[in-house]
Amino acid sequence: MAPIAQPLRIALAQINTTVGDIDGNADAIVGGVRRARAEGAQVAVFPELAVNGYPPEDLLLKTHFLAAGREAVDEIAAEVDDMVALVGFAEHAEDVYNSLAILADGRVQGIYRKMFLPNYGVFDEQRYFQAGESPAVIEVNGTTLGLTICEDIWEPGPPASDEALAGAEVIVNVSASPYHMGKGAERERMLVQRARDNLAYVVFCNLVGGQDELVFDGYSLVIDQDGELVARAAQFQEEFVVCDIDPSTAQRVRLRDTRHRPTARSRQAVATLAAVGAPARHGATEIGGPRAKPLEPGPEVYGALCLGVRDYVDKNGFERVLLGLSGGIDSALTATIAVDALGPERVACAVMPSPYSSEETQEDARRLAENLGIERFELPLEEVMSAYRQALAQAFEGTEPGVAEENVQARIRGNLLMALSNKFGWLVLTTGNKSEYSVGYTTLYGDMAGGFAVLKDVPKTWVYRLAHFRNAVAPGELIPASVLARAPSAELRPDQRDEDSLPPYDMLDEILEEYIEEDQGREQLIRRGLPAEVVDKVIRLVDLAEYKRRQAPPGIKISPKAFGRDRRLPITNKFRG
Amino acid sequence: MAPIAQPLRIALAQINTTVGDIDGNADAIVGGVRRARAEGAQVAVFPELAVNGYPPEDLLLKTHFLAAGREAVDEIAAEVDDMVALVGFAEHAEDVYNSLAILADGRVQGIYRKMFLPNYGVFDEQRYFQAGESPAVIEVNGTTLGLTICEDIWEPGPPASDEALAGAEVIVNVSASPYHMGKGAERERMLVQRARDNLAYVVFCNLVGGQDELVFDGYSLVIDQDGELVARAAQFQEEFVVCDIDPSTAQRVRLRDTRHRPTARSRQAVATLAAVGAPARHGATEIGGPRAKPLEPGPEVYGALCLGVRDYVDKNGFERVLLGLSGGIDSALTATIAVDALGPERVACAVMPSPYSSEETQEDARRLAENLGIERFELPLEEVMSAYRQALAQAFEGTEPGVAEENVQARIRGNLLMALSNKFGWLVLTTGNKSEYSVGYTTLYGDMAGGFAVLKDVPKTWVYRLAHFRNAVAPGELIPASVLARAPSAELRPDQRDEDSLPPYDMLDEILEEYIEEDQGREQLIRRGLPAEVVDKVIRLVDLAEYKRRQAPPGIKISPKAFGRDRRLPITNKFRG
Repeated sequence: MAPIAQPLRIALAQINTTVGDIDGNADAIVGGVRRARAEGAQVAVFPELAVNGYPPEDLLLKTHFLAAGREAVDEIAAEVDDMVALVGFAEHAEDVYNSLAILADGRVQGIYRKMFLPNYGVFDEQRYFQAGESPAVIEVNGTTLGLTICEDIWEPGPPASDEALAGAEVIVNVSASPYHMGKGAERERMLVQRARDNLAYVVFCNLVGGQDELVFDGYSLVIDQDGELVARAAQFQEEFVVCDIDPSTAQRVRLRDTRHRPTARSRQAVATLAAVGAPARHGATEIGGPRAKPLEPGPEVYGALCLGVRDYVDKNGFERVLLGLSGGIDSALTATIAVDALGPERVACAVMPSPYSSEETQEDARRLAENLGIERFELPLEEVMSAYRQALAQAFEGTEPGVAEENVQARIRGNLLMALSNKFGWLVLTTGNKSEYSVGYTTLYGDMAGGFAVLKDVPKTWVYRLAHFRNAVAPGELIPASVLARAPSAELRPDQRDEDSLPPYDMLDEILEEYIEEDQGREQLIRRGLPAEVVDKVIRLVDLAEYKRRQAPPGIKISPKAFGRDRRLPITNKFRG
Repeated sequence: MAPIAQPLRIALAQINTTVGDIDGNADAIVGGVRRARAEGAQVAVFPELAVNGYPPEDLLLKTHFLAAGREAVDEIAAEVDDMVALVGFAEHAEDVYNSLAILADGRVQGIYRKMFLPNYGVFDEQRYFQAGESPAVIEVNGTTLGLTICEDIWEPGPPASDEALAGAEVIVNVSASPYHMGKGAERERMLVQRARDNLAYVVFCNLVGGQDELVFDGYSLVIDQDGELVARAAQFQEEFVVCDIDPSTAQRVRLRDTRHRPTARSRQAVATLAAVGAPARHGATEIGGPRAKPLEPGPEVYGALCLGVRDYVDKNGFERVLLGLSGGIDSALTATIAVDALGPERVACAVMPSPYSSEETQEDARRLAENLGIERFELPLEEVMSAYRQALAQAFEGTEPGVAEENVQARIRGNLLMALSNKFGWLVLTTGNKSEYSVGYTTLYGDMAGGFAVLKDVPKTWVYRLAHFRNAVAPGELIPASVLARAPSAELRPDQRDEDSLPPYDMLDEILEEYIEEDQGREQLIRRGLPAEVVDKVIRLVDLAEYKRRQAPPGIKISPKAFGRDRRLPITNKFRG
């Protein structure tokens, strides 16, 4: 039996950075470096663009932003001694690169540049970065580590395969991989495959935190060369995972495994960027690390929404949020998420009954506010509505009341919420869901008025699912049962129901998923057995509502394709289907 | 003396396509083909992605959209006989390409694929397209034409240089090159240089028309091998330029010119895609074509704004537009542009005085409406304001009136305009300018409420300039002199003036241009001699207003960097300066 080489202690700093907060991010990184050293780690790994935050978007066009980031890297390097730190940053050389700095002995020992730049979905990396040209390895106490950044590892082949061929026993991947439903599990399966492809450990350190429309879920991983899980960090929270691995086993597997032909697409020269010594690990070492259990779908989405809200509110410096409670399910769920994210004292609500609001819905709204323990404002609409009626009487003479009058009412609510927001500096949360945003069943400047649209990417069927999940884990009553049972209504005219204007939500959500997320067309939808007239109507509504969505607040992406940066459609567009 | 070869008659169809309107665009192309044949042209050139419209954005992710475009190309091809048509379309092969179809003898003879895909500014072409790999030439009656698409020709070198080396006497460039101030002249200088670089004619056919935030200015050009202008199409309107050129002169120049070494960066194989015969031109031919005179800066920007408004309104199917007239310069200019774009019968205005509106401004608003001959609604705010005061009395108890109350007032106006919009189906034009959008001196859901923000990219100093220009060419009084003379005020509280809250507009606009368009930082601005405290204040205001701009309506890009797709900054962002 071959002698067992020294194990490697590796720290994964799953930190929550903030875009543009170079000082704050650098402090968090230095904190991670110190903790890694204190815990005896030889290597500390930080997420993609940890210094700048992700995604910095057009901040990357400011040369002084890049210079400030580079200065921070040098300052962090000065803190790194007796170990190696791998720190993501935006590098300004003869071009701009999405890079990973190898810090050791107080300075930058080498830089790896991301080779695959995603430019689809929410990603615009080719807008900013030049692609790196060389796979790279480093040696730490005789163990060879291959370096990759996020997208680099999603496809089989280089750079990881070239690095493995060049002797890497560990493939490190630093990421800022945004969340959508089920993404963590999908990513884990992919990384297991990469470990097996390359007969190497995979050490994956992901960003955690909310940034505008994106949530980064953490879920950092260590996987061994057989594809077995070694360590897994929790989702949606900062984690500091210290993990001992035995890379020599990877070497032994390779010697034994004659299949060892990593799928190199085109072999490239692999640069050895640094060879670093760190204090050896002595004594008994238990190979492995903590293994958080992945969340079930309901709590996973709920957790993403809470983190998205908390970080948007906190990183933008708001003390408190405000929302309108209608007694409907959407505002009830939004309020519940806000309270779970921020605590009841940081959430206020307004109940704004109109003559079309039923007693029951108003009562439910008040009961929910009590259940949640949040401050409640009562702002009746009737007088204001009547003043508008008067102001518009002449212009509207001879017309029948309709959508215009309904929207006036919704916009009064928007104006009242914004008045409280402007007066007290609170952030207004909007409560519309993805199904409504899709078909334009929302009032621009009315219920769409606010700074952050919590449920913007949550289909109505999922709103119910999340409300049921949250109620199930609550100790007492949370969202009143009558809210969950009542047929959805905008309550903008007497006896209004959503299903008077829209197909049933089950069918609507199926069409929307195919049309929006899967880019399926009319013919394909009809071939699935969906009724042609419903398909035509929904497609028409979705296309016509593009102008509203363009003015919608940002919301949290939880699906493979959210509105916002993720889906870029023209307003002026004559294509249908 | 060498014998003079046959001249070539070429038609440049500077057409106004609509995104997604494949049938309509195909009709326009077929119309151009027929007209070209009727006028004896051997080659007809159409803009980039003429079949699909530009930019189709995420429509390109729908395979059925691509298939529909390809079908249209084949249908167009069936109409092409005895000549060659060069038609841009999105090609779906093993990947998706931004392509140029060579149509002759009733079918697609070959396809050139764009090699340089812009992915900066407003462009996202790497999101959709794979780059082509081969320069290409075609032969028409013995003349060799090199093919390029838009970005392909902006840098010296391939593909144009390779095509010239392969014998091209004419470099064709089909474009969808968006307008900003002075871009046409800049483009002409560049193309003159390319003609000289390659000792070849340059035939440049550009799109014209408005598409959401972009205006394409037309300004198609034919330039000879010495860099001399042969033909120039007008800006901001459809044009059909028929031009005779004598490509044999290019060949003669090359034989004579020993410097003929086009700046090939890396020589690539050039494909000859088609050799086509067309009826020869006989008889006396006057070499050259029409030469439109480029507009001066004032009328140029004004023309772009008119086209942008007209196409947004018409392509989105609105009969009429509506805007609030305050008596201030911004709404006055917006109304004037709308009338010039659409005619007075398609423009309505609302005058909405509050207790803080002065008699003079209201009078000016009414006078302007009369000068323009547009319908006017009078909607006084006082009663509605008082109803809001009452509704908010309890919540606001003990607070001083301030921004919250001012914004209520602005949002009442927004609600009234939207009520008219919803009732009658009119598009609301907003009137804020770029300086205001930059520093957030606008009310979200108030004066920002509307479907299209005409002056969104026009700095305040340019608002004055455009108003003066337009008044100067008007026969009688247009914008009252008192509107131009009055100090700017939002009139949301007594005796308010913009310059109480903001630096003087000359200084503000200078800072904004450097900070926004040039990505200069705090230190660089101060080094220019701008006062540090003003710089700090403006930068802070610009950064803080990002959340407002994210919910702003689209507006017309007239500067090198507009808000919208052109400038993508995070809302959550702790970087300052």
